[in-house]
Amino acid sequence: MAGICGTDLQILEGYAGFDGIPGHEFVGIVDRTPADDERWIGKRVVGEINIGCGQCSWCRQGVKEHCENRSVLGIRQHGGAFAEFTSLPAVNLHEVPDSIDDETAVFVEPTAAACRIFDQMTIDAVARVAVVGDGRMGLLTAQVLHTATPDVTVFGRHAAKLAIARSLGLQTATSDTAVSPSSRFDIVVDVTGRPEGMRRAIEIVRPRGTVVMKSTFHGEAPIESWPIVVDEVVLLGSRCGPFRPAIELLGSGAVQVKPLISRIARLDEFESAFAEARRGLKVLFAVNR
Amino acid sequence: MAGICGTDLQILEGYAGFDGIPGHEFVGIVDRTPADDERWIGKRVVGEINIGCGQCSWCRQGVKEHCENRSVLGIRQHGGAFAEFTSLPAVNLHEVPDSIDDETAVFVEPTAAACRIFDQMTIDAVARVAVVGDGRMGLLTAQVLHTATPDVTVFGRHAAKLAIARSLGLQTATSDTAVSPSSRFDIVVDVTGRPEGMRRAIEIVRPRGTVVMKSTFHGEAPIESWPIVVDEVVLLGSRCGPFRPAIELLGSGAVQVKPLISRIARLDEFESAFAEARRGLKVLFAVNR
Repeated sequence: MAGICGTDLQILEGYAGFDGIPGHEFVGIVDRTPADDERWIGKRVVGEINIGCGQCSWCRQGVKEHCENRSVLGIRQHGGAFAEFTSLPAVNLHEVPDSIDDETAVFVEPTAAACRIFDQMTIDAVARVAVVGDGRMGLLTAQVLHTATPDVTVFGRHAAKLAIARSLGLQTATSDTAVSPSSRFDIVVDVTGRPEGMRRAIEIVRPRGTVVMKSTFHGEAPIESWPIVVDEVVLLGSRCGPFRPAIELLGSGAVQVKPLISRIARLDEFESAFAEARRGLKVLFAVNR
Repeated sequence: MAGICGTDLQILEGYAGFDGIPGHEFVGIVDRTPADDERWIGKRVVGEINIGCGQCSWCRQGVKEHCENRSVLGIRQHGGAFAEFTSLPAVNLHEVPDSIDDETAVFVEPTAAACRIFDQMTIDAVARVAVVGDGRMGLLTAQVLHTATPDVTVFGRHAAKLAIARSLGLQTATSDTAVSPSSRFDIVVDVTGRPEGMRRAIEIVRPRGTVVMKSTFHGEAPIESWPIVVDEVVLLGSRCGPFRPAIELLGSGAVQVKPLISRIARLDEFESAFAEARRGLKVLFAVNR
């Protein structure tokens, strides 16, 4: 199975200039390996998407995410998972435990991306957190941060998605809810993939607070810089993250993904699947159904 | 004496909506005090520019810089130092030691702003630092950071200003110098006050590096957000800083300001003084000359 991500929608609009097969959130069965890696055959796996050159200073530090010569599954110079077969180096693979079914396993990659925030900053139990955006990544990120602090509010524009957020134990607010100076947030994560999301995040973060930029968008966004300087805000770019904690959070049930699945489609239904992904939550491709 | 700062030039263009007397970099003699503060009378002082309410949660933590009800000398609801007399609470004052003359003392406030970066992040002796902008704040900030690491490069557009930078022991490069992926900087400070400065800073910082935003500009800047996310860059808004380390750096000669003085003008020469400040380095007003 494979999931449609916001980045896939951006790629269709020209982001990253990629014209191969997209798809980078997946679960699959290992079918073929080099002779020295046969122990992987038949295993159910998920995979880290960055493929490093193995030679550069980043790769030597074990950070293939920033390898200057990297390819990226379904995003850069490497065909992706919206296909019957795809390939990754064995070093990128993680076996999926039985406690995680296929639908859930597809969410390991985006859950790992949300977990990346924990690598980058401390979020303690008294932190007040807001997530701007009530889409699939918003509901996932909010649940991940909710494991660190009880005070997580999702800001969104869709009543149905905010209702799902509440059912997951999160607080919610409509996007245009006024936030008084004294109730601004310590940490705000923008997952909207839209310039106005970033502006809103800067607006509702407290002085010396942190805005985590968790989504890319194609094209320039007009941003007023002076509030960032005057309020000494930290903006933190955040991308791919660690798979192990993501597998733990999904396996333990601390992060629930079933309510985020809008539809499971066949690959030949790609047109309507992408259309659904634009307005709905997570659309999965079940490649062999 | 008082100095013209980039913010003063922005204020004239409408930034902060301030229509009082500008001027927030100054040295003066205390002339009058409340009865219980008479020990200040006759002392030569510089002053922190943020005036807190003393009541709010920020003020109770001793951070008047982020008091929600603050006024700011020459910037917000409080007349500034381009005048024969100005006023500040005694708690804002720092006596100037004899080792620092008047011309140098005017630079305490902007030097403190540069020192603020040390409060916000660790800069060790192997850090590679770039300062984008060869104006007064660029040459000052580069010298301050040069006390932490020998590897500081000033990027600028003005041959004469870059020559001053070199005479101060700094490395220099013209603004359009190509920076290869492997020679990008750990820390880049944008002091240009222009959108293209921020874009350039993001361009020459390494993945997971930090861009310090040290200057405000009026209006929105179109920024591409995806390189910030993909390279996991940290953007750090940075404003006012601690006076004590600034006084030490100026008193010890570690930071040299005399080469940064373009002109010393009388207050009634304000028109030509502001014109000079737009193209030159630091213009000082000598109020009583």
